[in-house]
Amino acid sequence: MREVAVIGVGMQKWGELWEKPLRDVFTESAMLAIDDAGVDKIEAMYVGCMSSGLFCGQEHIGSLMADYLGVAPIPSLRVETACASGGAAFRQAIFDVGVGAHDIVLAGGVEKMTDVDGGGATFALSTAADSEYEVYHGVTFPGLYAMMAVAHMDKYGTTRDQLAHVSVKNHKNGAKNAHAQYPFEVTLDQVKNAVMIADPLTILDCSPITDGAAAAIVCPLDMAKDLSKNAPIKVLGSGQATDTIALHDREDIAWLSAVEKAGEEAYKQAGLKPSDIDFVEVHDCFTIAEICVIEALGFFERGKGGTGAASGETHMGGRIPVNPSGGLKSKGHPVGATGVAQIVEVTKQLRGECADRQCPDARIGMAQNMGGTGGSSVVHILGSV
Amino acid sequence: MREVAVIGVGMQKWGELWEKPLRDVFTESAMLAIDDAGVDKIEAMYVGCMSSGLFCGQEHIGSLMADYLGVAPIPSLRVETACASGGAAFRQAIFDVGVGAHDIVLAGGVEKMTDVDGGGATFALSTAADSEYEVYHGVTFPGLYAMMAVAHMDKYGTTRDQLAHVSVKNHKNGAKNAHAQYPFEVTLDQVKNAVMIADPLTILDCSPITDGAAAAIVCPLDMAKDLSKNAPIKVLGSGQATDTIALHDREDIAWLSAVEKAGEEAYKQAGLKPSDIDFVEVHDCFTIAEICVIEALGFFERGKGGTGAASGETHMGGRIPVNPSGGLKSKGHPVGATGVAQIVEVTKQLRGECADRQCPDARIGMAQNMGGTGGSSVVHILGSV
Repeated sequence: MREVAVIGVGMQKWGELWEKPLRDVFTESAMLAIDDAGVDKIEAMYVGCMSSGLFCGQEHIGSLMADYLGVAPIPSLRVETACASGGAAFRQAIFDVGVGAHDIVLAGGVEKMTDVDGGGATFALSTAADSEYEVYHGVTFPGLYAMMAVAHMDKYGTTRDQLAHVSVKNHKNGAKNAHAQYPFEVTLDQVKNAVMIADPLTILDCSPITDGAAAAIVCPLDMAKDLSKNAPIKVLGSGQATDTIALHDREDIAWLSAVEKAGEEAYKQAGLKPSDIDFVEVHDCFTIAEICVIEALGFFERGKGGTGAASGETHMGGRIPVNPSGGLKSKGHPVGATGVAQIVEVTKQLRGECADRQCPDARIGMAQNMGGTGGSSVVHILGSV
Repeated sequence: MREVAVIGVGMQKWGELWEKPLRDVFTESAMLAIDDAGVDKIEAMYVGCMSSGLFCGQEHIGSLMADYLGVAPIPSLRVETACASGGAAFRQAIFDVGVGAHDIVLAGGVEKMTDVDGGGATFALSTAADSEYEVYHGVTFPGLYAMMAVAHMDKYGTTRDQLAHVSVKNHKNGAKNAHAQYPFEVTLDQVKNAVMIADPLTILDCSPITDGAAAAIVCPLDMAKDLSKNAPIKVLGSGQATDTIALHDREDIAWLSAVEKAGEEAYKQAGLKPSDIDFVEVHDCFTIAEICVIEALGFFERGKGGTGAASGETHMGGRIPVNPSGGLKSKGHPVGATGVAQIVEVTKQLRGECADRQCPDARIGMAQNMGGTGGSSVVHILGSV
């Protein structure tokens, strides 16, 4: 396949965007990415979105977004794999360029989650779990991740404080990100004493409900310098994998097998190992998720992920900075957009454009996106050329 | 890109499958396709589905279906572009094999539409239209296609009888298809005098609400003969395009621009023209849709599509047989599955396995799948090797 590069990225401040319809949330970020790349056209697009049907009463957003972006009749497709939809959209865009179908392709992601009332958002999110064997019995995602946390604590001695340190770190990073929904710091005591959601997870262990979008422009690596004045960021590896959709069907509910497998594929393609990665954006939908993910990606030994944030190793300036953007916890989690926003952050870090949250001398970055309790995961490794 | 072939297809009888959950509907067809190909594994899968969220309260079906098919941890992704989701899943599977990511890939489609009560199915389907500028104002798809029909009748003199002839022809073909939801013939008078849905369309001008699935296995053409004893069916061309999502935003509401553009791309890749196509499966969600589609694909002059079924030219044995399977009208229309079922029919026709609805000496077949009122369309051309 042709080698692929990212030449433009775009996103706007995330939050509760009451004043903007779904289409505007998406097209604003898409236009920023097109402007950033400096291209005068795109030839195809992929839109990651988990559930515009349940959140907004709108499917067929491939057509809708191409129309409102003013780029119809180009091919435009929505892809969905729950909260990993954005990463999957980026992967399909790579395939599209790689196979030679098109040269300039937009990978975007969007979710508008605040337009439903009552338990609408919780129900919509629950559809990422097994509807028949999990959701019908009353389980929601905070409950599922709480079970993973309890299992991890029981098996490995992971502590309540270690979970809280993930939130403290990510809020510290996100406080320096103008696009973050919650750009403020929190203390260990605040996390531990916040409203309990599902023991041991308080509301400050949970990523929020967010409206937002993100977009990236990819093209063949050998055309990147002609098409854009931005330094091209090369796609070094792309992995995707699945696991049982239901948490209870797994051999070990404290281990994310799909993340491990997607990571292995990405490492293999890139010819790299964990110690070669300068920083990583991971899917910290809950604090325990970050702990499990950094183990599955090989940055920490199995069972030792809890030491990451608590010891400072995953902080900015640490051995492997995790979530310099603030992660899902502070930046927000518009589920279909999250995976693309990770690509935005990795690209900007590799271009050296992250100001006071810049990872110095970053040459190789990773993005890990995840659906459900890890029923699917997508991992990308990008590098400066 | 690597050339791609279809080596296996599968589907079961469509209808109101109350006894089967969404996952079983899909996996049964997927296993038939795997058995038909004779492969002992698949390496990736794409699932076309329009709205499992609104129909069944279940998103994340890439993970769910890989899990229940027993093929996790392979990459598995849902793609959606309304009723063209199945065609799009097939296209992404082609890209996946073409780019060299995997060798044996399953393209499937599924929809279970009867598990919602009241107006649930009509609402779910309406989300393929523009929620803000069409649906909120009360428009549904029968109404939108009725407006297209009235415009076509007004502009070109297309008649009520010509519309009805499409239904009569497709039911005649579908009566010979054991997988069809409604495998019976209807008369011109029955179509015209059936319950009025949206003038001039009666219920026998409309495709039904259906539960069903379909699947196809693709691989590199040069591996096809080693992998399967079936005659390989080569993918000659793949086109996808978009149009405005809202019908009222188009210059001509009686013309399907996305179908025209997707068809042009497929013809160009195949190096073929309309007269080279031996038969075509088209998206006859309403009788008027088939009339507009056969014009947009170049089989009939603009405005003359109404003569197709009425004159016999689109019948079996006619100049260009349209919908030998019975089409959406008789076979049924589980929206996410329809595009893959078209590939199933085209493949079986090209393999000469369609018994008493076989197109004699068919060497080149086309499949045209469409979302909404034509806001998106996917066209494929397949040929026997």
